[in-house]
Amino acid sequence: MAPQGPWIALVGPGSDAAQSDLAHAEDAGAAVAEAGAVLVCGGLGGVMEAACRGARSRGGLTVGLLPGSYRADANGWVVVALPTGLGEARNALIVRCADALVAVGGGWGTLSEIALALRAGLPVVGVDTWQLARDGIAVDGVVGAADGRAAVEEAMRRLGHGAQPRVS
Amino acid sequence: MAPQGPWIALVGPGSDAAQSDLAHAEDAGAAVAEAGAVLVCGGLGGVMEAACRGARSRGGLTVGLLPGSYRADANGWVVVALPTGLGEARNALIVRCADALVAVGGGWGTLSEIALALRAGLPVVGVDTWQLARDGIAVDGVVGAADGRAAVEEAMRRLGHGAQPRVS
Amino acid sequence: MAPQGPWIALVGPGSDAAQSDLAHAEDAGAAVAEAGAVLVCGGLGGVMEAACRGARSRGGLTVGLLPGSYRADANGWVVVALPTGLGEARNALIVRCADALVAVGGGWGTLSEIALALRAGLPVVGVDTWQLARDGIAVDGVVGAADGRAAVEEAMRRLGHGAQPRVS
Amino acid sequence: MAPQGPWIALVGPGSDAAQSDLAHAEDAGAAVAEAGAVLVCGGLGGVMEAACRGARSRGGLTVGLLPGSYRADANGWVVVALPTGLGEARNALIVRCADALVAVGGGWGTLSEIALALRAGLPVVGVDTWQLARDGIAVDGVVGAADGRAAVEEAMRRLGHGAQPRVS
Repeated sequence: MAPQGPWIALVGPGSDAAQSDLAHAEDAGAAVAEAGAVLVCGGLGGVMEAACRGARSRGGLTVGLLPGSYRADANGWVVVALPTGLGEARNALIVRCADALVAVGGGWGTLSEIALALRAGLPVVGVDTWQLARDGIAVDGVVGAADGRAAVEEAMRRLGHGAQPRVS
Repeated sequence: MAPQGPWIALVGPGSDAAQSDLAHAEDAGAAVAEAGAVLVCGGLGGVMEAACRGARSRGGLTVGLLPGSYRADANGWVVVALPTGLGEARNALIVRCADALVAVGGGWGTLSEIALALRAGLPVVGVDTWQLARDGIAVDGVVGAADGRAAVEEAMRRLGHGAQPRVS
Repeated sequence: MAPQGPWIALVGPGSDAAQSDLAHAEDAGAAVAEAGAVLVCGGLGGVMEAACRGARSRGGLTVGLLPGSYRADANGWVVVALPTGLGEARNALIVRCADALVAVGGGWGTLSEIALALRAGLPVVGVDTWQLARDGIAVDGVVGAADGRAAVEEAMRRLGHGAQPRVS
Repeated sequence: MAPQGPWIALVGPGSDAAQSDLAHAEDAGAAVAEAGAVLVCGGLGGVMEAACRGARSRGGLTVGLLPGSYRADANGWVVVALPTGLGEARNALIVRCADALVAVGGGWGTLSEIALALRAGLPVVGVDTWQLARDGIAVDGVVGAADGRAAVEEAMRRLGHGAQPRVS
């Protein structure tokens, strides 16, 4: 009855996403749905909207955790929209709900979600997203992928093809 | 595509629910689904589980906001289970997601949800739940209903039969 | 160095407090400080402001957990003001920080804090506050006190005069 | 009566801090107190403890927002310890309380706080912390400083020497 697959958090910029980010996000969303996974995101526009549209094009389940208090803020492709009223603190909830995280592009909010996911030990795959270093040396953490579909496939592979998700 | 109806929060005790509470909760859950509304709850056992089972018996959508960090804590009738990791602070999120609240039985956690819902101006309907007074005088707030189905019907009526939900 | 006493949450209405509520709150705040306890509250006006003023008149430490995002929203008697940006979800944080709770008067928000404190097993003492019943029978929970000072003294007594606070 | 200065968030690793991180953090804490600012942190060990010790050595006010539910988890130099029970979601509260952020060293949790602070438009100064890039090009955001004291001085300078803090 309930969705059986893992939950993939799809994070990235809202209003200032690049065209290529939007294309990657839509492909990623479609791949999430094809894999039988649930897509969870921040529920707003830009990368979030493109990812939800992609997932819905394949009949997937999309969950949006909104920063504000109004359900109507969700983009039109979110099936289950939760107005949290927590502001940016909702980023931690997105990560907590996820078994893996895929970042496409990204500003500071996206970086906070990448960091929280790595803190929690989740697989994190990125397309055109942040590069992290300490003392001039690149730090492993975000696995790079060439495009949105490849990113989701890599995330699913790291979850054992969804066979052993962390919490489902 | 997305559920169009309002969200009804169904709250009540977990482990120490009375048999009559469970029966009312299951009927209430079924009525929520029949009304085309979304059922949101704390996702655990007792009243929450009975309500989700009732909603699923009619094909309804059930959302569980768990206090802990593990999705597996959700009862088996929750379609969309979110491990919030917020403890009892998640009660405020249940209320924030809801257009109306139905309480069946209830302990202290239920009382906190009733209070937050009244604070937010939501319709609150109760079956065998708390009676509130100040200075020995009953305080209006929780609308009494005879059973679970009547409670949901009253909540829907106060939402204008779902025609004008607060935030959808 | 750090305050050694327990933390007493002082809760009650903001803008619509009765004059007697304000007087009780100011006395209660003074009693908290005299007992060497820390006063934690919602940081706004009405009962919260009166309680902080009372505590400061005896040199006590006052902590305000604000619902909004601006420190300037705090009343002038809050020493440590934290803008949480969590809205009413901050009520759960007030309770989590407290070893006991004193309610003076109160609306729905106050009732939510009383309920969360009882849920957490804290001593709860009230002056002119909510009366709770189930099936027409009063439910123990909130210990009544005649005035603000007596309420704090009762709370301290239930904490073993502060000798064994829950978490300090 | 209340502390007048801005709030500086001091963030960095707990258990796995380098010796140089601890030295920078202690100096930074002392500089925060000398500047009349309030030090807010996660309240635990490592960089957090060193910073609090530095601040207390100058009589400063230290606030710790703990991830767990027990006040006793705080290091011994925290004056005001708040057990939030929010887990890593408390990182967002640390940032929300702050007028500027200083990072010393840092793991993933620290990176999440840096990102949230930049998202909120706060000045962020770092010592031996994360370097951020997109498309192989360094992204401005974290202002580098040579040591803990210099970091705090730079943060205060960017706040107009504390004359115009964001929210105080």
